[in-house]
Amino acid sequence: MSDFIVGIDLGGTNVKTAIVTEAREVVAKDSRPTDAASGPDAVMDLMALSVKELTAQNGIDMSKVLAVGVGAPGPMNWQTGIVYSPPNLPGWNNVPLADEMHKRLGVPCYIDNDANVACYGEYWMGAGQGAASVVVFTLGTGVGGGIVVFNQLLRGIDGTAAELGHLTVQRDGRVCGCGAKGCLEAYASVTGMIRTAREGWDAAETTLKEMCDGNADALTGKMIHEAAAAGDAYAKYVFKETALWLGLGAASMVNALNPERIVLCGGMINAGDMLFDAVRETVRANAFEVPAKRCEILPAGLGADSGVLGCAGCALARYQEEYM
Amino acid sequence: MSDFIVGIDLGGTNVKTAIVTEAREVVAKDSRPTDAASGPDAVMDLMALSVKELTAQNGIDMSKVLAVGVGAPGPMNWQTGIVYSPPNLPGWNNVPLADEMHKRLGVPCYIDNDANVACYGEYWMGAGQGAASVVVFTLGTGVGGGIVVFNQLLRGIDGTAAELGHLTVQRDGRVCGCGAKGCLEAYASVTGMIRTAREGWDAAETTLKEMCDGNADALTGKMIHEAAAAGDAYAKYVFKETALWLGLGAASMVNALNPERIVLCGGMINAGDMLFDAVRETVRANAFEVPAKRCEILPAGLGADSGVLGCAGCALARYQEEYM
Repeated sequence: MSDFIVGIDLGGTNVKTAIVTEAREVVAKDSRPTDAASGPDAVMDLMALSVKELTAQNGIDMSKVLAVGVGAPGPMNWQTGIVYSPPNLPGWNNVPLADEMHKRLGVPCYIDNDANVACYGEYWMGAGQGAASVVVFTLGTGVGGGIVVFNQLLRGIDGTAAELGHLTVQRDGRVCGCGAKGCLEAYASVTGMIRTAREGWDAAETTLKEMCDGNADALTGKMIHEAAAAGDAYAKYVFKETALWLGLGAASMVNALNPERIVLCGGMINAGDMLFDAVRETVRANAFEVPAKRCEILPAGLGADSGVLGCAGCALARYQEEYM
Repeated sequence: MSDFIVGIDLGGTNVKTAIVTEAREVVAKDSRPTDAASGPDAVMDLMALSVKELTAQNGIDMSKVLAVGVGAPGPMNWQTGIVYSPPNLPGWNNVPLADEMHKRLGVPCYIDNDANVACYGEYWMGAGQGAASVVVFTLGTGVGGGIVVFNQLLRGIDGTAAELGHLTVQRDGRVCGCGAKGCLEAYASVTGMIRTAREGWDAAETTLKEMCDGNADALTGKMIHEAAAAGDAYAKYVFKETALWLGLGAASMVNALNPERIVLCGGMINAGDMLFDAVRETVRANAFEVPAKRCEILPAGLGADSGVLGCAGCALARYQEEYM
């Protein structure tokens, strides 16, 4: 009988848990509110409880669990298992998350950052399955990334690799949250898309104005997507601009890494062809022919579960490397 | 006694050959004109002769040679050993270079593209030695690149990876030789630097005008470097612009790969601090603090021999993977 791996995706809002087999079968999943305000000890107790309950409910003894992988917001040290001070987890300062979870669960515990586990999830069980090299862009408030090459997560020497939202796509461009200028994230994130919409706002004739009651500060990515899907020319322009910037970042990765697949994650991928057609077209126009033809550009296959399943996948890979 | 590996760097002008030990000691080197006009068979005979002569001169029997690695201009298939039709090797069309060299020398022969072997040379014996992850930018007529991660050359699924001259650094920027716009190469190559100098040429007060007899078409990278080193303000501006663009590309790689070292190769590195200070400053300003602090940005340690020594290193790695 196959052994089990548990993934825990620790977000600021929810803690998601999943039990997966070595053969990549999802046995069970759970989600419960993080209650981040309760502080690190309570949150770690909650995570441990969620694992114990979910395994018990499914008749799985903890001795059958090879390893537990936790995906958490960075910055962190994935090797020592310490989480520094993530902005959306108040009160977390240098928390030895891997050790604390090991104390609570008695099995090897590993941590990795949330963008990396999402990438690994897509590589292991999702749209990247079967490929040895996968680049993931996660599109949300920011733009995150993950890179798998040689069938391994590329974490970099300090674990900070794959910050793909911070490829420079425009010299002296928009100021990014990171302090630099012209980062991909400043254009291709949902926040960047909203910035693009606001730039031409006053002169624009667009149904977006009604949708947000004339208040550009209330604009959301969902509104832009909906208006564009309904045929609003300005919203279509804004969406296409966003996709074009993303395509430039993707083209750079195609030329740099010649990967088999690029996988896009995050709510923005619900826009479907409107997003993917423009990204693919930009990659074809900007990357070399051979790697551009090779690289499939696909939506996430695991939806909102890329992270939690990737936690399990990363933990399995690290367990195997350490013990097998 | 250690066995030997032979590297052959096949350029349009010269064929360089080196004998190296597994312990990374350079035993002997040779260089002779390629005579590219004589066609592939004659050039391959010349390469084989150069290996036979160099080994014989050093009292090394071919039975002591583990493998031969040839670095050649792309495009090529590094796995099948076939060179397609490199622009600077007239008459070469789908030449089975690895097989032909094997016929002539009787030992395993491998081919890799010239930018990748230069990268591997720096990783194996040069400025990248001791690091597991190295990014190389080769600065010449174009901008080439090489990437080593997990102590392996990252060639990509089709062998086209590390085209670092074709990271997009400016949307709708200068038209690049590859057909796309805003590629790093259009700004940070010697050719790009000369383009920058010509852009402000008419209005510029600069000693460069005397140096090239008022003819901007005669401008060279060396002139710009010399004028800048002598204090010419316009030449200094042009050089700094070039370094700044290169720094943006380097910063993207620092954020994407979190490498231990970036190594710059090519004649432009003779400018020393004038180049490196500006590149390092741009990386610090544009990349995240942890990976920017970590990543050393260094000049090539092997000078013009990165390629030929890297050929030997690549061949050794491939031989070990195949037979050991």
